[in-house]
Amino acid sequence: MKTLWNNSDSQADAPQVLAFDVFGTVVDWHSGIAREVQALRPSVDGGSFALAWRAGYQPTMQRVRSGELGWTRLDELHRLILDGILKDFGLDDLSEAQKQHLNKAWHRLDPWSDVVAGLTRLKTRHTLCTLSNGNIGLLTNMAKRAGLPWDCVLSAEVFRAYKPDPATYLGVAQTFDLAPAQVMLVAAHQDDLAAARACGLQTAYIERAFEFGRAQPKDVSPNPANTRHARDFLALADQLGC
Amino acid sequence: MKTLWNNSDSQADAPQVLAFDVFGTVVDWHSGIAREVQALRPSVDGGSFALAWRAGYQPTMQRVRSGELGWTRLDELHRLILDGILKDFGLDDLSEAQKQHLNKAWHRLDPWSDVVAGLTRLKTRHTLCTLSNGNIGLLTNMAKRAGLPWDCVLSAEVFRAYKPDPATYLGVAQTFDLAPAQVMLVAAHQDDLAAARACGLQTAYIERAFEFGRAQPKDVSPNPANTRHARDFLALADQLGC
Repeated sequence: MKTLWNNSDSQADAPQVLAFDVFGTVVDWHSGIAREVQALRPSVDGGSFALAWRAGYQPTMQRVRSGELGWTRLDELHRLILDGILKDFGLDDLSEAQKQHLNKAWHRLDPWSDVVAGLTRLKTRHTLCTLSNGNIGLLTNMAKRAGLPWDCVLSAEVFRAYKPDPATYLGVAQTFDLAPAQVMLVAAHQDDLAAARACGLQTAYIERAFEFGRAQPKDVSPNPANTRHARDFLALADQLGC
Repeated sequence: MKTLWNNSDSQADAPQVLAFDVFGTVVDWHSGIAREVQALRPSVDGGSFALAWRAGYQPTMQRVRSGELGWTRLDELHRLILDGILKDFGLDDLSEAQKQHLNKAWHRLDPWSDVVAGLTRLKTRHTLCTLSNGNIGLLTNMAKRAGLPWDCVLSAEVFRAYKPDPATYLGVAQTFDLAPAQVMLVAAHQDDLAAARACGLQTAYIERAFEFGRAQPKDVSPNPANTRHARDFLALADQLGC
């Protein structure tokens, strides 16, 4: 009886659009940034460098959210943070060209191993878009390099607001002329999912235990408030019948 | 000598991003709209209906450009125009659901026969995006139905300006952090290409002689100001060495 009810319920409520958080959910930023900085300077502790760069992410976006900075693309925010940590890692002697190259390491991140196969299955029944604070160019370059089969690249840049601003989650629904409940946010971060849920979206939590590196696995325990909880994109495709 | 010079020149100047006009260039709106209205009401002259609907396009966008209307997505402009012509074609008895369905016929247009194969070849060496006055949802639904392999869906909706506003052409270059000359607009309309050229973009004219139907072939003669002139997307792929 439970199975039947679940089946009919999940058919009735099947989301038309799946909107994906990207950094941490789709791509492994920790390994990717560590690899790129070590290619430039093998003596640097790549993992610590990646964590330090990422640690500047929320506070720097907060400067935009608060109005201290006008609208600024993530490429430029990444550069602001980078310039602030180079000295701590003995990298202040990098040339401008090397700094620019390193800053675009965020365009060259690799997806987790399940991602391309999972998205390919999910795409058969759903419209797949990004919903990331990354800028459109960054997300498009990343997708082209990594073979991510998005139907559409949506971004904070389209809505001129960073997540968790409701304008981003509701913006996806409005873009496709759908009710919020016809959209599902897929993310590895409970705070992102909570903000989407507050806007009426469905939510799917993806376990990415090693987002911050193998040395510090994160808590991936389920929150029953999410519509779905899946180990990875293949498991989500199983759950959604793709 | 000429051949050698041309080869090296075209390598040096190869555009990184190809931005495509969509209605008329990628998809055959005339046949598609005619087919959809005739499916609803076989007695209607589908070709005349398609021309009448499209004829409202520029004047209605002009109401947005002039500031008379605030920013309005093309889906809503299409509906304004549709409501204005229904009576002329004896269609004012359509139900609201039928009108909504018909209005989304622009999401269900078929590509010209060379398009999917041509884009697939062009995608191997270039980033492919739309640059259309269509809204993001319309363009994404169209691409998913027709199998158009865009790397990114850009639109007037992203830039909050309709072509030929320079903000749209320059917006593509800025999105990808490129100089305007590293972007090529691909279109079947000389006015669109001229506006892009004025912003410093490369331009490729595509012959779509039957854009307005087989009964009224349009002038497709070359303008030497364009960087390229190609019969269709396969010929453009040949010219760009894809």
